[in-house]
Amino acid sequence: MIVIEDRQSLDSWVEQSRMWGGKVGFIPTMGALHEGHLALVREAKKTCTQTIVSIFVNPTQFGPEEDFSQYPRTFEKDRALLEEIACDAVFLPSPEVIYPPGGQTYVAVEPLASQLCGASRPGHFQGVATVVTILLNLVRPHAAYFGVKDYQQLTLIKQMVRDLAMAVEVVGVPIVREEDGLALSSRNRYLTAKERQQATALYKALLAAQSLFKNGELKAIKLEKAARKILYESGIEQIDYVEVRHRKTLACQLSVEDPVMLIAAKVGKTRLIDNMVLST
Amino acid sequence: MIVIEDRQSLDSWVEQSRMWGGKVGFIPTMGALHEGHLALVREAKKTCTQTIVSIFVNPTQFGPEEDFSQYPRTFEKDRALLEEIACDAVFLPSPEVIYPPGGQTYVAVEPLASQLCGASRPGHFQGVATVVTILLNLVRPHAAYFGVKDYQQLTLIKQMVRDLAMAVEVVGVPIVREEDGLALSSRNRYLTAKERQQATALYKALLAAQSLFKNGELKAIKLEKAARKILYESGIEQIDYVEVRHRKTLACQLSVEDPVMLIAAKVGKTRLIDNMVLST
Repeated sequence: MIVIEDRQSLDSWVEQSRMWGGKVGFIPTMGALHEGHLALVREAKKTCTQTIVSIFVNPTQFGPEEDFSQYPRTFEKDRALLEEIACDAVFLPSPEVIYPPGGQTYVAVEPLASQLCGASRPGHFQGVATVVTILLNLVRPHAAYFGVKDYQQLTLIKQMVRDLAMAVEVVGVPIVREEDGLALSSRNRYLTAKERQQATALYKALLAAQSLFKNGELKAIKLEKAARKILYESGIEQIDYVEVRHRKTLACQLSVEDPVMLIAAKVGKTRLIDNMVLST
Repeated sequence: MIVIEDRQSLDSWVEQSRMWGGKVGFIPTMGALHEGHLALVREAKKTCTQTIVSIFVNPTQFGPEEDFSQYPRTFEKDRALLEEIACDAVFLPSPEVIYPPGGQTYVAVEPLASQLCGASRPGHFQGVATVVTILLNLVRPHAAYFGVKDYQQLTLIKQMVRDLAMAVEVVGVPIVREEDGLALSSRNRYLTAKERQQATALYKALLAAQSLFKNGELKAIKLEKAARKILYESGIEQIDYVEVRHRKTLACQLSVEDPVMLIAAKVGKTRLIDNMVLST
């Protein structure tokens, strides 16, 4: 596996990889890789001739009070994991490679970026949209892979790619969960043993809402109430949101149709998110 | 010359044109073509194997009080002009081809977009940045050509392409002027005979400032004052701005260095712009 750190080497790699009809698959990450990320790489390898993962902890998507400096950086472990599943290349840029000094440009997706996680993390999705645009322009992949776990992020990137006519296929890859249902996340490692136990309530809350929905409950507020109850009962008190939205547009619905439930909550000091399409 | 109206035909044309090392040159326009636009096509044809012009009067870059509905649409004449200079293709999309319903994404370049023309045309440069991004993503040219006459627009697009790492070379092409110095513009046709005469004052004002600068005047305010005087004397009273800025960044300077002078003024009801690099 080749490790690429600068634009020129990346460009040569991309040129070569696209030659003779080669298909490039791209997985942008912030590192601290886990099975969820590896599932993205495996999905890419199914149809692409070359697969490249980027590892870049993007400063512009963290708020001033957030965990940018504490975010786990585990490159040697990440590299070993990627080698093991025969990933072809890893792009490991410094902040200056992504953001040369004097930058003024950003990409905004409104109103999608201001809701849900965007409401409590102002600027987050503008940071995401901008860095993904830059990375896609640098890597020029045929397909880019994102985890369904970051549901709003995936929806936003699909919207952006469509609106700006970017020549890339955006592929969402299902959530990978622990045995007890907790969705894999690089932030799970922040959890204490007790919090780790509490955190399973997110999945249980989603399952409860799904079960209610399948039994005919169509009122968003009822589904949300049932999910909140389970979170509270497990001792999770700092709920950011529990919302049922339209699966494709994330539009609010009183009476739900093709719904996804999205949850964000703090377990101890760690903010976790999870979601479930209720009809599946 | 092929006329392309939809994304699929454009895509085929682009694929074919890029084959075997072909180099695509792109000139985005709003039509109402004049010698200034044709100079862009000629410049592209010098180094590109295929040259494509887009004609799209972009609604999002016009303010509610501006001349979107009145903007001249002269496609048959435009086509003849492009045929004559052997342009290879013209892309003539409907608004729906550029902006499919439900769009939420825009590209912003701040603070560059809020100054000069941006101050009196809020949203204008956001519309420009967004439509140019979409067009570049659709056409995927090797080089894109813009007139120096829209100096702030050219600067903004260079900034955006750099910041978002777009894989395109941005080429600025010098202003084409009438015999008496008036910069060619699609809006010149709005001028009455008397206004047409007055309009030459923009060029004269720039020349006066340039002459002062070459004689050693380095105070921006003195250069601007001299230019304003010439505009007033010709009867132009609605001056939007007369500003000396840094040639590359458009930063303000008390004592000028590598300066460009930019003018925007209304002659009658028609808003005209012009500029000159003072050291040339």
